[in-house]
Amino acid sequence: MENVLDFASVYCKQLDKRRSMTRHALKTSRSEDFATWYQEVITGADLAENANVRGCMVIKPYGYAIWERMQRILDDKFKELGHTNAYFPLFIPADLFEREAEHVAGFAKEMAIVTHHRLEQKDGKLVPAGELETPLAVRPTSEMIIGESMARWAKSYRDLPILLNQWCNVVRWEMRTRLFLRTAEFLWQEGHTAHETEDEARKEALQMHEVYKWFICDVLKIFGIPGKKPEYDKFAGAVDTFTVEAMMQDGKALQAATSHYLGQNFAKAVGIKFQGRDGSLQYAHTTSWGLSTRIIGGLIMSHSDDDGLNLPSAVAPYHVVIIPMIKNENSREIMEYCHKIKSMLPGSIRCFIDAKEYSAQNKKWDYVRKGIPFILEIGNKEVDTGDACITKRLTMEKQNMPLNEFVSSIEKMLADHDDLLHKSNSDFCNSRITQVSSYDELYAFFKSGKTGFVKAKWSGCASNLEKLDELAISIRCIPTEQSGTIGKCILTGANTTIDAIFAKSY
Amino acid sequence: MENVLDFASVYCKQLDKRRSMTRHALKTSRSEDFATWYQEVITGADLAENANVRGCMVIKPYGYAIWERMQRILDDKFKELGHTNAYFPLFIPADLFEREAEHVAGFAKEMAIVTHHRLEQKDGKLVPAGELETPLAVRPTSEMIIGESMARWAKSYRDLPILLNQWCNVVRWEMRTRLFLRTAEFLWQEGHTAHETEDEARKEALQMHEVYKWFICDVLKIFGIPGKKPEYDKFAGAVDTFTVEAMMQDGKALQAATSHYLGQNFAKAVGIKFQGRDGSLQYAHTTSWGLSTRIIGGLIMSHSDDDGLNLPSAVAPYHVVIIPMIKNENSREIMEYCHKIKSMLPGSIRCFIDAKEYSAQNKKWDYVRKGIPFILEIGNKEVDTGDACITKRLTMEKQNMPLNEFVSSIEKMLADHDDLLHKSNSDFCNSRITQVSSYDELYAFFKSGKTGFVKAKWSGCASNLEKLDELAISIRCIPTEQSGTIGKCILTGANTTIDAIFAKSY
Repeated sequence: MENVLDFASVYCKQLDKRRSMTRHALKTSRSEDFATWYQEVITGADLAENANVRGCMVIKPYGYAIWERMQRILDDKFKELGHTNAYFPLFIPADLFEREAEHVAGFAKEMAIVTHHRLEQKDGKLVPAGELETPLAVRPTSEMIIGESMARWAKSYRDLPILLNQWCNVVRWEMRTRLFLRTAEFLWQEGHTAHETEDEARKEALQMHEVYKWFICDVLKIFGIPGKKPEYDKFAGAVDTFTVEAMMQDGKALQAATSHYLGQNFAKAVGIKFQGRDGSLQYAHTTSWGLSTRIIGGLIMSHSDDDGLNLPSAVAPYHVVIIPMIKNENSREIMEYCHKIKSMLPGSIRCFIDAKEYSAQNKKWDYVRKGIPFILEIGNKEVDTGDACITKRLTMEKQNMPLNEFVSSIEKMLADHDDLLHKSNSDFCNSRITQVSSYDELYAFFKSGKTGFVKAKWSGCASNLEKLDELAISIRCIPTEQSGTIGKCILTGANTTIDAIFAKSY
Repeated sequence: MENVLDFASVYCKQLDKRRSMTRHALKTSRSEDFATWYQEVITGADLAENANVRGCMVIKPYGYAIWERMQRILDDKFKELGHTNAYFPLFIPADLFEREAEHVAGFAKEMAIVTHHRLEQKDGKLVPAGELETPLAVRPTSEMIIGESMARWAKSYRDLPILLNQWCNVVRWEMRTRLFLRTAEFLWQEGHTAHETEDEARKEALQMHEVYKWFICDVLKIFGIPGKKPEYDKFAGAVDTFTVEAMMQDGKALQAATSHYLGQNFAKAVGIKFQGRDGSLQYAHTTSWGLSTRIIGGLIMSHSDDDGLNLPSAVAPYHVVIIPMIKNENSREIMEYCHKIKSMLPGSIRCFIDAKEYSAQNKKWDYVRKGIPFILEIGNKEVDTGDACITKRLTMEKQNMPLNEFVSSIEKMLADHDDLLHKSNSDFCNSRITQVSSYDELYAFFKSGKTGFVKAKWSGCASNLEKLDELAISIRCIPTEQSGTIGKCILTGANTTIDAIFAKSY
C-alpha cells in the first residue's frame, strides 16, 4: 500500500499539523483502506445508504440537501444560457431504442425492461400479468425519446435552436454498485439541444463542457482536467465527447460530467428534419450533456479527510451549526445567546441551532463528520464573556473569538475555508501529475504502486490498448490544453503531437 | 347540453361583456365541447403533448415552468414546517409490496412490472433477456419503500418524528388517459412522516391537508371543498384520507390533493418500531400526502376561457410580455423602448421581450392562449407618446397608458388580476352548489343535465351506493364544515347529521 501511504504523507499530514486532537472521527483512515473509508464518510455524514432493492440507493436528507444545492446552481446557469426545463417519458419502447445502432449497442446490456402491467396472485405469490406488446426500457438516457419530440417540434429553421434540459432519474443495470459512484438508479440532469448548423451545435457542446468545468473546478473546488474522450470511448452514438476527468485522493480518475456533439446521428435516427433558409429539408445537429449524483462521490473523494466530509460553501447545506452546551439551571440564557448569534449572522450564512436532547460532545463529532465548516459550542463561559467558541472543520482548530468579531468576519472565514479547500486539493493533485515518455516508464510508474494521472504522447489510434489493460489503466482524455510538441506515442511509437492522460479510474 | 350552456351564461358572458373583440382564440368553446376545449387550451398554450409511449405525456417547457413554480412554493412551505427532501428507489420488489394487504389490492392491477435487465437481438428483433429473480414494480406510490427505510432509522422515540418529502415520477398503468388528469407516468411530491403518537400523526395529516387547501384555494385560486373521504373510498391502506375536492367549470369534481393518516398499518407491515419513553417497543404512526401534475389540469379547467389559459400570478411563468411591433426603418428605437420598459418594472414582475421574427399579431394571440396576464404591444405610436399599449388577458380589455403610470401600477394591476380570477371562479362555483333533501331531488338534478356539487345528508355507511352509479356520480367528501343539523340520509333514510358532497368527477 505504498501509494496510499504516499498520498497520506502529502495531503493528510498537511492538515494534520493544524490538528489539536489526536483521534480521528472515522474508524478507518484513507491510508488504511480507501474504499472502506469512503463508505464510512458516507455513513458518518448520513448521506446515503443501500436500499433493499438490488443496486439502488436511498439518498438521505443531508445527501439530498447537497444535491439540491447543486441543482439550484446548475439550473440557474442553464436558464441563464437560454435553456428551459421539460419532462419526457420514463419509458422508451424497445423498437424506438433500436433505431440508432451504436446507441442501442452501448446500452442494451444494462437496461431495466418493463414487460407487464400488473401483478396477480398465483399459488399464493404475486406474479407479473398483462404482458405488453412492446417491451419498454426504463430510460438509461433520453436521446431517443427527446429526439422523437424534437422531430415533431422542429419544422422550420425558425424553430431552432431547441434548448432543453431535464432533471430526472435514470436506470442502468450495473452489476457491481457503489453508493453515488455506480448505482442501478441515479439522478441527473440531461441537456438536449437541436441546432441548424454543425458549427452552432459544436459551440453548444463546448459551452456546456465549459459550464461543467466551471461547476466542478470553481464551484465544487474539485481538481479536474477538461478534455476530449478517445474515439473508442465516446458516448454511444456521439461524434465527439468532452469530459472533465477529476482526480480523487487515491489518484484515480472520475469521469465527472460529459458533453456530446452528436452530429446528425440521432436526428437521422428519429427524423429531426427542418426546412432550412434555402427551403431545403435538412437534418438538425444535436448535442446532449449530463451531470449526475455521481459527482457527490467525487466531492467526497476530493475533500473529505479522516474525520469525514468537507464541503465547499456553495453546496454546504449549513455553514454554521450552533451547539448549546446546556446544563439544566441555565438553559434559557444559553439558548437566548444562541438565537442572538444566529440572528446577527449575515443573510448569506446558513446556520442552525441544534437543541436536540443528546450529548453535546456527540453532536460536535456528528457535525465534524458532516463537514459543517464552522461548529460553535456555546456554554456558560461564552454567555459570560460574550464570545463564540469556534471549531474550524477543515483544520480542526478550536478558538474563542468575541461574538462581534465572529459575526463581522464569518463571510471572510468562509471564503478562506473555500480557498484552503481548493488549495489543499489542487496542490495535492497537481503534485500527482507525472510526465512519461515511454511505455516502460508508464509501466514502472503504475507497477511501483504510485497513483495519479500520467501525461504521455499518444497517436490517437486504438492500437495496442491491451498494454493498458495489463496495468488496469485507461486513457482518460486528450486534455484541451495541449503542449503542441512532437513526440513518440508510448503505445505505437508513431510520431504524434497529442498529449493524453492515463490513469486508473472509477 | 343545457348544463353547459347554463354555465356559459353565468361565467363566460360575465367576462365577454368586457371584450372588444368578437372572435375567440380557440376553435372550440367550453359550451360546445368541454373535453375538446380542454385539449385545445393545452395545445394552444403549448403545455404538454401525448408521447409515442402508451399513456405517457411530454410536459413541454411552458407547462413545466408552471410546475416548477408550484414546486418552489410548496417546497418552501414543506421545509418551513420542518420537512426535508430525500430520494428513494423507483423500484419496489413484488414481495415487499405484498406485505400490506389492502395496499397491494389497491395498486396491483395498474403497475408497470420490470422482469428483465437487458435487451438482446433475436431473429432481428430486440427482446427482453436476463430475467430477474423477483419482479420489480415501478413505484405507484412509496409507502412501502420509504417505510422500509424508516424502519431502519427509527430506533428510539428520540429519532421521531421523521418528516420526509420526495419529488419524483410515479407510474400507474391507467387504461384511459388524458393529459395531466390521468397519465401512466406523472410527477408529484409525496410526503411521508413517522410519529411517536397517534395524536401527533393525526395533527400532521391535518396540517398538510391545510397546506394543500391553502395552496389550491389561496395560491392557485381554485375553488375547492376540503373534507374527508368516505370510508370505502380511502387511500389503500389508510385509516383516514383528507381531500380537497375542486370544482371544474363543467361542474365536475377533481380530487386535487390528499393527505392520509395511515395509523400503524404500514408501520406494522414494514416494521417501523421504536423504543418508547417507557422503554417498551412500539409501532410508529405514519402519514403520507401528495399533490401531482394533475393539479395543472385542475388549474386549466378552473380559470381558462374560450381564448385559452389564464394563470394566477404566483405560478405564471411570466406576468408581462412585450411585443415590439417592428417595421424595418425604426426597429432600434422600438427595441430600446421595450428594453427600457422591462428595466423599469419592479423585480417581482416576470417580464420578457419577444423579438422573434414572426407576425406581431400572431404573437399576441399566442400569448393570449398562454394566459400571460399583461400583453404589451409597442410600436412607433408608443415610442412617440411614451405610452404602453396593454391588453389585460383576463378581460381582453385593451388600453393605452402612460409608461410611468403602467410601471407604478403594475403590481396593483397584477393583484387585481388575481382578485378577478379568484372572484370569477368562486362566484361561479358557489352558485353551483345545490342542497337537496331526498334521492328524488338528487336524481332530478342530475337527470335534468344540471351540473355542480350537490350537498345532502348521508348516513356514512356504504349501503345503496348503486343508486349513485346509476347517475354516474359519487360521494366526493364529507366537508370539514358541517351544518350539525339532523336529517335523513338520501340513500338509506336513516337519521344522520352528516353533510356530504355528491358530484360527477374526473
